[in-house]
Amino acid sequence: MKIGIIGYGYWGTNLVRNFSVQDGCQLAVVADSRTERLDIIKKNYPSVRTTTNADDVFNDTTIDAVVIATPVFTHFELAKKALEHDKHVLVEKPITSSSAEAQTLIDLSVKKNKVLMVDHTFLYTGAVQKMKQLVDSGDIGKVNYFDSTRINLGLFQQDVNVLWDLAPHDISILTYLINEKPVSINATGISHTKNEIENIAYMTVNFQSDLVAHFNCSWSSPVKIRMTLVGGDKKMIVFNDMEPTEKVKVYDTGYSVKTMEEKQRLLIDYRAGDIFIPKLQTSEALSLMAKDFISAITKGTKPVSDCYLGLEVVKILEGAQKSIKQKGKEILL
Amino acid sequence: MKIGIIGYGYWGTNLVRNFSVQDGCQLAVVADSRTERLDIIKKNYPSVRTTTNADDVFNDTTIDAVVIATPVFTHFELAKKALEHDKHVLVEKPITSSSAEAQTLIDLSVKKNKVLMVDHTFLYTGAVQKMKQLVDSGDIGKVNYFDSTRINLGLFQQDVNVLWDLAPHDISILTYLINEKPVSINATGISHTKNEIENIAYMTVNFQSDLVAHFNCSWSSPVKIRMTLVGGDKKMIVFNDMEPTEKVKVYDTGYSVKTMEEKQRLLIDYRAGDIFIPKLQTSEALSLMAKDFISAITKGTKPVSDCYLGLEVVKILEGAQKSIKQKGKEILL
Amino acid sequence: MKIGIIGYGYWGTNLVRNFSVQDGCQLAVVADSRTERLDIIKKNYPSVRTTTNADDVFNDTTIDAVVIATPVFTHFELAKKALEHDKHVLVEKPITSSSAEAQTLIDLSVKKNKVLMVDHTFLYTGAVQKMKQLVDSGDIGKVNYFDSTRINLGLFQQDVNVLWDLAPHDISILTYLINEKPVSINATGISHTKNEIENIAYMTVNFQSDLVAHFNCSWSSPVKIRMTLVGGDKKMIVFNDMEPTEKVKVYDTGYSVKTMEEKQRLLIDYRAGDIFIPKLQTSEALSLMAKDFISAITKGTKPVSDCYLGLEVVKILEGAQKSIKQKGKEILL
Amino acid sequence: MKIGIIGYGYWGTNLVRNFSVQDGCQLAVVADSRTERLDIIKKNYPSVRTTTNADDVFNDTTIDAVVIATPVFTHFELAKKALEHDKHVLVEKPITSSSAEAQTLIDLSVKKNKVLMVDHTFLYTGAVQKMKQLVDSGDIGKVNYFDSTRINLGLFQQDVNVLWDLAPHDISILTYLINEKPVSINATGISHTKNEIENIAYMTVNFQSDLVAHFNCSWSSPVKIRMTLVGGDKKMIVFNDMEPTEKVKVYDTGYSVKTMEEKQRLLIDYRAGDIFIPKLQTSEALSLMAKDFISAITKGTKPVSDCYLGLEVVKILEGAQKSIKQKGKEILL
Repeated sequence: MKIGIIGYGYWGTNLVRNFSVQDGCQLAVVADSRTERLDIIKKNYPSVRTTTNADDVFNDTTIDAVVIATPVFTHFELAKKALEHDKHVLVEKPITSSSAEAQTLIDLSVKKNKVLMVDHTFLYTGAVQKMKQLVDSGDIGKVNYFDSTRINLGLFQQDVNVLWDLAPHDISILTYLINEKPVSINATGISHTKNEIENIAYMTVNFQSDLVAHFNCSWSSPVKIRMTLVGGDKKMIVFNDMEPTEKVKVYDTGYSVKTMEEKQRLLIDYRAGDIFIPKLQTSEALSLMAKDFISAITKGTKPVSDCYLGLEVVKILEGAQKSIKQKGKEILL
Repeated sequence: MKIGIIGYGYWGTNLVRNFSVQDGCQLAVVADSRTERLDIIKKNYPSVRTTTNADDVFNDTTIDAVVIATPVFTHFELAKKALEHDKHVLVEKPITSSSAEAQTLIDLSVKKNKVLMVDHTFLYTGAVQKMKQLVDSGDIGKVNYFDSTRINLGLFQQDVNVLWDLAPHDISILTYLINEKPVSINATGISHTKNEIENIAYMTVNFQSDLVAHFNCSWSSPVKIRMTLVGGDKKMIVFNDMEPTEKVKVYDTGYSVKTMEEKQRLLIDYRAGDIFIPKLQTSEALSLMAKDFISAITKGTKPVSDCYLGLEVVKILEGAQKSIKQKGKEILL
Repeated sequence: MKIGIIGYGYWGTNLVRNFSVQDGCQLAVVADSRTERLDIIKKNYPSVRTTTNADDVFNDTTIDAVVIATPVFTHFELAKKALEHDKHVLVEKPITSSSAEAQTLIDLSVKKNKVLMVDHTFLYTGAVQKMKQLVDSGDIGKVNYFDSTRINLGLFQQDVNVLWDLAPHDISILTYLINEKPVSINATGISHTKNEIENIAYMTVNFQSDLVAHFNCSWSSPVKIRMTLVGGDKKMIVFNDMEPTEKVKVYDTGYSVKTMEEKQRLLIDYRAGDIFIPKLQTSEALSLMAKDFISAITKGTKPVSDCYLGLEVVKILEGAQKSIKQKGKEILL
Repeated sequence: MKIGIIGYGYWGTNLVRNFSVQDGCQLAVVADSRTERLDIIKKNYPSVRTTTNADDVFNDTTIDAVVIATPVFTHFELAKKALEHDKHVLVEKPITSSSAEAQTLIDLSVKKNKVLMVDHTFLYTGAVQKMKQLVDSGDIGKVNYFDSTRINLGLFQQDVNVLWDLAPHDISILTYLINEKPVSINATGISHTKNEIENIAYMTVNFQSDLVAHFNCSWSSPVKIRMTLVGGDKKMIVFNDMEPTEKVKVYDTGYSVKTMEEKQRLLIDYRAGDIFIPKLQTSEALSLMAKDFISAITKGTKPVSDCYLGLEVVKILEGAQKSIKQKGKEILL
């Protein structure tokens, strides 16, 4: 199987490094409009072809799969062309700029019977894999809330706001962990620049059940916080990605709610118990993602980070954007 | 000056301990409907009178000032009676259950020319005093955001939701630090019990300027977090109340925004600099609050935690409650 | 059973508070040479007798047991007198200023058939009790090392050096956890004052087996550290007493050593696994200690913090002092 | 100026990466006995010559300087040969296995008028440079103590004990910061393997003045700690290398000692004040070290990590080893 990569920027560098050493595929070509970027490929990967024209990749019938690592607004056109040329496609997150585009790509991939996958790398980390296992096994019980904070002194993007930049990580984790689909979204945000692109934003995602998810994203925090709480009625998880090794802590902590009929009063039983910090798998997440893509193509397996999950993420981002523009109004999905 | 305290519960214990040793006043009487509570007073403070009837305090013309530490829903009636009996009044936070009640009390206190103060103890801590000084001096520049997290495994209250229970601390700090008045509020929340009282809630407070304030409150977190970020355009403050000594960190960190006219693009200059952890005043906040009340009565000084600030806090809580009930809709103040 | 307490200073306050409420005993008398201290007893504990003369306690034949909370250099004389007057005795840590004195008291207590106990309160904490259980159950395997750091900006004592002030806590834990007796000691220390009393000291305690214990004590550290590592060949414990709740962490981490005969080389198998943070018992340690003393008297149970353990602690302190004076030379016990 | 590097192992990789891009020198040749290592050079640095014979480097008269990154026991012979062939020399730390060897090399370098430098990379970090500045400026006052902990679950070395493996970092920092020369050493250690190579060791370094330095090194700790305290009589520094950004904290904390003549008693004035976390220079330390070597050769500047400092480090390690073998006895330097 031969692979072409389109876009050799920051993340493209990591993709090239990973796909160039995967078993079961050959990195055949890298496309980027900037010749100085291609020079690096020429030097470090002399056997890989380079081109400044993405069409060279699409038109090359020996190429089986295309990896797209370009700016978000170009994802749709490039992925569409790739599918039309009968390539399997892996797109950087978020999959597209709109859910309509994502749906179009999904429909096309089904029609063409090609793999369409999105690179939500975080899902392949040892931390998220462990959390998935804890949720699926029933260990933490019914999930009551998901609360994520991702803030730091970050680069103000010019084209997308802080939610589109930072929240895809956390939304993909939510979507991966929770089977229930959200019903609505509230979001607020603020821009401290004149371009009206929000550098701070808060989002609440509502569900039919009594699950709530909340996201706090900022490019303007003096401290770097990457923390997610997942509260079940049996146990609760704290995922602190800033911890070098003890990233996931499982608290044998909970509360159960009873109504005392006699007095019509509520009794809450608290429990604060042991804490468990599981050893996590430490393989590089991006390498596992690459293997998942190859396996989906060669063995027909369902990828963890598939296009349907990618679509859900975009739907939520879209809803959040709408809510921000309507001053926090609830947007039904 | 003679003082009476009404309510000898958890916080009343601290109030009695503090007022019994303040210079310039004498704790004369404590009222509580529970005789077993009054027995403790009799044993530990033999010179203090006790009564099960609050009216005994109001009708005692030798009493100059009344401290009210009873459940929130009783604040209004008790404070009103106290003012009508020409007493100075200190009420536990929040001042009342509604802004209308708070306004009525304020009007009455003005008419009676009596001090009306609310016990937002947090304002008297070394940490908040230092933050006030940093904001007022202009050291941190224009405040861009205020972001507060106050979560832990907490007692589910039966009568008020998590915002009314936990957020008064943070809202009082916001109101104290920031001179600008908020214009609107968005809030969402969820109840994991059948009584519909929210145990998790999120609130955004909006201002005319590009300042935003956000609050994350929960009784259902396995970890205890009490952290407030105050971001200025010159410096940023992190107030971590869980740190035993290094509670306030001042980051010489910021960004300035410029528009490059030529390309119509934005340039953000980042700066990550030194960090400063000031030594804080360590006097007991509650004792300073008591002194502030006495000084307001005897010297006519303006208290830090005055009734106008107390009213602002209730207005914001009221707005948040409305927004939650209207599914996050923006509520104008 | 009637109890007298001699010494109503800082720690005496806690002892009086605890013994005044214990079941199975009555706090009858408190002795202190300072009348202003006794006034506090008179006010808060009106039913307790006071005296400025310790002999009043010894000569009172209705007193069954005496608690001694005076400066270290007075422990021996007071405890000796108490035993001679047929009282059970509880002494503050360290039991005496020398091992000879401790041995004399032990012999006397055996002869008189009275309980002699020393108040190493730390042994009754949930953290140490959990560690004891982990060691005794074999969970952590053979203990290879014990490494304790107890440093902060502390009061320079006038009569004892930093080891006699701080290390008794850690030495008592070592002695409690480990059944093997130490064979020798090395210690170094330095005084930054002219009175030659060391404010910083380091001590290594050597054992017949390949166990080593190390202690780092300082009154001159800007940060407060209270951390003990206990390394077994199966698991390792980190006891961080500065953590508010997660004090004891058990690391499923270890290494096993094999010799490859062929190459005469060593192979070390590392293992870094899960971490477990057990929920600790949270009863007040001092109250459990008081109960242990009462039980030893009334039921003849063996106290956790008995006089033999107290003697071991003093032997080690004595050895350390000798080693410091001999410039770190190994002192055999 | 042309440079040859001997030894392309773990650290050699970093040296090659750095010297290949430095201005003012050309990396001409890399020697390693393992051809598979040289293949990596051939692929990634096609213009660099390779050889399996170090003599090829020495005999090449176009080579001006040699960098030696081989096992410690080979340093002396290789560096000696290099100097004899009139090359400037940079050796990995520690400079040699004995102080006699180091002295021989120093004498030879003086005779040959060549630079002899040792790669104590840590000295070039932003943290140590800031500490040096704080000590030299007099900001922290007279240094009273230096206390270093460097422990983790580490690779058991086969040829050197934990002190020779880990302590060179900390000893080099001590030697760099403090102008006073140590007078004696006490050390204890233990081996949990049969090869008698200590995997845990403790060392005290004594000075004529009342300065003391202590080192705690272990390959057997479940937690990774890299912390150094430097206590002055004006301020104190905590250098925590595990902190991602806030590595150096300066505490405006101290104590001054006075003798009250009247009572012959000591008065200690404590002061706990502000804390300052300076922004550190973040250039790669190894690159700065490489530049320092080049500058020493081309401009005759005195390198930070010169051979005299390297000799001091080895003297202390040698003394520690002797003390361990003599059961902690004080070894005069």
